[in-house]
Amino acid sequence: MTVLGVIGGGQLARMMIGPAVELGVDIRVLAEVEGSSARAAATAVGDYRDVDTVLAFAEGVDAITFDHEHVPAPVLAALAQRGIPVHPGAHALQFAQDKLLMRERLAELGLPMPVWARAESAADVDAFISENGGRAVAKTPRGGYDGKGVRVISAASEIQEWLESGPVLMEELVDFTRELASLVARRPSGEVRAWPVVETVQKGGVCSEVVLPAPHANSRLIEVAADIAVRVAEGIDVTGVLAVEMFETVDERIIINELAMRPHNSGHVTMEGSVTGQFEQHVRAVLDLPLGSTESRAEWSAMINVFGAMDVSRYEFAAKHPDVKLHNYGKEPRLGRKVGHVTTSGSDLAQVLADARAVAAVFE
Amino acid sequence: MTVLGVIGGGQLARMMIGPAVELGVDIRVLAEVEGSSARAAATAVGDYRDVDTVLAFAEGVDAITFDHEHVPAPVLAALAQRGIPVHPGAHALQFAQDKLLMRERLAELGLPMPVWARAESAADVDAFISENGGRAVAKTPRGGYDGKGVRVISAASEIQEWLESGPVLMEELVDFTRELASLVARRPSGEVRAWPVVETVQKGGVCSEVVLPAPHANSRLIEVAADIAVRVAEGIDVTGVLAVEMFETVDERIIINELAMRPHNSGHVTMEGSVTGQFEQHVRAVLDLPLGSTESRAEWSAMINVFGAMDVSRYEFAAKHPDVKLHNYGKEPRLGRKVGHVTTSGSDLAQVLADARAVAAVFE
Repeated sequence: MTVLGVIGGGQLARMMIGPAVELGVDIRVLAEVEGSSARAAATAVGDYRDVDTVLAFAEGVDAITFDHEHVPAPVLAALAQRGIPVHPGAHALQFAQDKLLMRERLAELGLPMPVWARAESAADVDAFISENGGRAVAKTPRGGYDGKGVRVISAASEIQEWLESGPVLMEELVDFTRELASLVARRPSGEVRAWPVVETVQKGGVCSEVVLPAPHANSRLIEVAADIAVRVAEGIDVTGVLAVEMFETVDERIIINELAMRPHNSGHVTMEGSVTGQFEQHVRAVLDLPLGSTESRAEWSAMINVFGAMDVSRYEFAAKHPDVKLHNYGKEPRLGRKVGHVTTSGSDLAQVLADARAVAAVFE
Repeated sequence: MTVLGVIGGGQLARMMIGPAVELGVDIRVLAEVEGSSARAAATAVGDYRDVDTVLAFAEGVDAITFDHEHVPAPVLAALAQRGIPVHPGAHALQFAQDKLLMRERLAELGLPMPVWARAESAADVDAFISENGGRAVAKTPRGGYDGKGVRVISAASEIQEWLESGPVLMEELVDFTRELASLVARRPSGEVRAWPVVETVQKGGVCSEVVLPAPHANSRLIEVAADIAVRVAEGIDVTGVLAVEMFETVDERIIINELAMRPHNSGHVTMEGSVTGQFEQHVRAVLDLPLGSTESRAEWSAMINVFGAMDVSRYEFAAKHPDVKLHNYGKEPRLGRKVGHVTTSGSDLAQVLADARAVAAVFE
């Protein structure tokens, strides 16, 4: 039997379970805690930062992949030394773990980005701000997600505590019309497939809605968005699913915002919206199996995140919309916690969005 | 958390795992052996005929359902006595366990069937044969599946050993043009939803191919087929998925062949072919959750069974058809064993079938 090991027991690991089972792959998860979102496949509970814990977990797997990008380099090195295939590999993952490294590498690859700089000091920060219109975005290179570790500032004093612990990534405040994401999967032997570019809508720094394909996307946009993601994947040798979050600017340029080297919230819409969803594709890619078709299964598909609580007993209130697909992460409810998402598809985008929003609202 | 217990660790239990996980349901399986097809969700290994084993397994579940129909009545009674919801219930399941009881009950409901009789003796059998054209179908009331326990005979002597152990069901040899199946799901509170009727092609008594919807189905056929399945489900109070296998006769009648009270091979095509696949619908139904839409997601969908072996290493040979979906039951290969299936969808039925057959052939 083919065995896949996943480090991290969050909803991304959880959503790999179904596709892995259907592909005939035995999936094992190293979870952080008992009762994790991916508990159905958890074969171990322990600290992913501990080399011995991870090596013990990895015994007998055909490949290791991740629910998140936080596994430390020494752990990745120990796995590689044991000859266990790790996808994405440490040489790629470093660019998802460190946004400064990412900017440097994407610059080498000549990819379109906002104006950015490494700031080592308050003077660097203030110089960048004044060169870029009096306001700019500051990011901690490591550990940020869902809006954390990102601030719009007009003076270095606003991020003094960040500067005390190391360099900060400064970026221009991009004048964008909307946010897009381009998802691709790439397998170790080189095959790469992109999904059509999606539009993502953020609320409070957190992904809220996604539409597949991005509305009003002309053929140039579609090509450019896919090309950027493929160039990133090949340029830094990503294996598995890569999500490239992008801005579309007022002057119709596409520039890279962030990278995620794993299935990503912007790709949940592919679960029903595409012939091959991102979780199946990730399982295929990291096991070096042939990739599935990324064609859309409907004219429009939409995904809406559910925050707070998604109790099964409330499904009754979604019965008016039997075409909307529910994805429940099996998490304890907590205010503002992402606990699931819904998707739906159809030929009328306004209706698709209305139906999905109506069901998401049931859980609010 | 909502917990579903499934008795039996075969591929039907396996294919409930993904949908249960997505719905936020914790699924537990009582498997017959270690390494069963549904091993990813197996929380117990034991004999489903043993009351204590099953009661221990059922501790803490919200409902019990089945991978097969062989759980004995005393075990079902013990579960009911503990107040554990069992779907389908023993009062319905008896008609799937005993084909004579089934014929008697469907006759009471006035549903269309082949000419049939209960034969207690060789004389009964021979009389039935001579009244029905010299040849007839004999079936053991219990324990038959995939062509086992079914024989076309022209004399009682051919089933002498069956008669020694009890009555035999005799049925006319139906002059049919094709076989159809009508699938419905029904929940305890009464909601019922049918999928469009499918055509099934058998080879050697085993389901080989299924097309959704049945080709050349006029609106009368579609209505009649759905109506029959709904009348069976309501008439015998089936909860969960019910598959009604039917013959379409040369004179365009639809008559009931067999019943299955669980997800069924004829419904695998709904996994990608329908907005709600039969495994998700079964999980919803047995937990009394609102049922999903049974609308088709494409003009045509086809399912082809894979027999023998379905090794992941052979997926490479299916790479020419990245739109065909693979379902691998994770079973050890064995000559003639059903080890998986493939499905595909599209607007050109000939192409859909050709693609699915090409991929199934990769594993032969």
